[in-house]
Amino acid sequence: MKIYGDIRSGNCYKIKLLCALLGIGHQWIHVDILAGGTSSSDFLNKNPNGKIPLLELDDGRCLSESNAILNYLAAGSDLLPEDPFELAKVQQWQFFEQYSHEPYIAVARFIARYLGLPEERRQEYESKQAGGHKALAVMEQQLTATPYLTGDKLTTADICLYGYTHVADEGGFDLSQYPAVTAWLEKIASHPNYTGMA
Amino acid sequence: MKIYGDIRSGNCYKIKLLCALLGIGHQWIHVDILAGGTSSSDFLNKNPNGKIPLLELDDGRCLSESNAILNYLAAGSDLLPEDPFELAKVQQWQFFEQYSHEPYIAVARFIARYLGLPEERRQEYESKQAGGHKALAVMEQQLTATPYLTGDKLTTADICLYGYTHVADEGGFDLSQYPAVTAWLEKIASHPNYTGMA
Ligand SMILES: N[C@@H](CCC(=O)N[C@@H](CS)C(=O)NCC(=O)O)C(=O)O
Ligand SMILES: N[C@@H](CCC(=O)N[C@@H](CS)C(=O)NCC(=O)O)C(=O)O
Repeated sequence: MKIYGDIRSGNCYKIKLLCALLGIGHQWIHVDILAGGTSSSDFLNKNPNGKIPLLELDDGRCLSESNAILNYLAAGSDLLPEDPFELAKVQQWQFFEQYSHEPYIAVARFIARYLGLPEERRQEYESKQAGGHKALAVMEQQLTATPYLTGDKLTTADICLYGYTHVADEGGFDLSQYPAVTAWLEKIASHPNYTGMA
Repeated sequence: MKIYGDIRSGNCYKIKLLCALLGIGHQWIHVDILAGGTSSSDFLNKNPNGKIPLLELDDGRCLSESNAILNYLAAGSDLLPEDPFELAKVQQWQFFEQYSHEPYIAVARFIARYLGLPEERRQEYESKQAGGHKALAVMEQQLTATPYLTGDKLTTADICLYGYTHVADEGGFDLSQYPAVTAWLEKIASHPNYTGMA
């Protein structure tokens, strides 16, 4: 099993973290986006949408989209509930992440951390702050009520949202305003098989 | 079972279409976003992220995110595969929709159709065209190879992407460039239990 990714990307790191927690062996293939690694015809054959992370099974079948990969790899483990409503809640948080969290927090982080906050993108960076804080407030409300996003157990919903939340400060988001989020981050990082981004 | 939504929104219409195809009885509660329907404290108690569609079960439990609702309602039916890899492929297409399709095609349509393409949003509208066409081309490639997005059966991945694709022309996307997409749209619309947006 091969995983194509860049560990500094939260979407890719999610998969690395899940594999560490579940002890899933794999070959990690580093892809450099800025050097065109996702636009080669070889890569586009595997994922026509041209994005990492990408999972390639030993028989050659490929799966893209970080959260689809998480749920596929976690099937049958403690990290993916079997109860239909709980499973739907996991997906609810994952779609929330892709639509209401990542486009603000990951993009602000990318502009600040990787591009060095150039003047011509400052306005876009600023425009991401309100949406990012709204997403963090939604998480804070849930994590004040339950230890993990879908209840009292760690699931792939948490792994998914951990990806960019734990580096949200690099996008200018001060997490000290969100004590329940901060406690949840610490809980995840203290797991014995935890692996960090770097 | 109650579904809160606005039928003109592709994200809400998806659920209506699924319920029609599967014959799922429900009470539809119209929510007017522009009149503040998603920001009342009553609504925010049901969905702290303040978005429709929203599913409320008879016991009061709520589920948000259109694609999580689709998969929950389709569980056990022909529209949701049981094979783990096929199920992952359904999710792959749904995350693709939320990240690489909807933010371009739905937003361009909203600006053109509902706001009447005002001058101050023309640049944003233009900026959505390339991303929308990229998403349509990814779909075209798949639908040239297989009759439905994940193979030879209709699944919630198709229902999901049908939502905004079938009204993409309202966002300025000329679908005649995508014959396989067009044939797929017609195939879905010819289903005996099909229901349209209006
Ligand atoms: N929705 C996708 C997003 C993946 C994504 O945006 N990947 C970025 C790196 S973080 C990428 O490959 N960008 C290259 C490109 O879009 O050309 C997922 O969750 O996997
Ligand atoms: N990711 C969500 C998106 C839902 C969404 O954006 N809903 C819009 C209507 S199409 C909404 O409720 N907007 C009100 C708001 O954001 O305040 C889903 O798939 O359900």
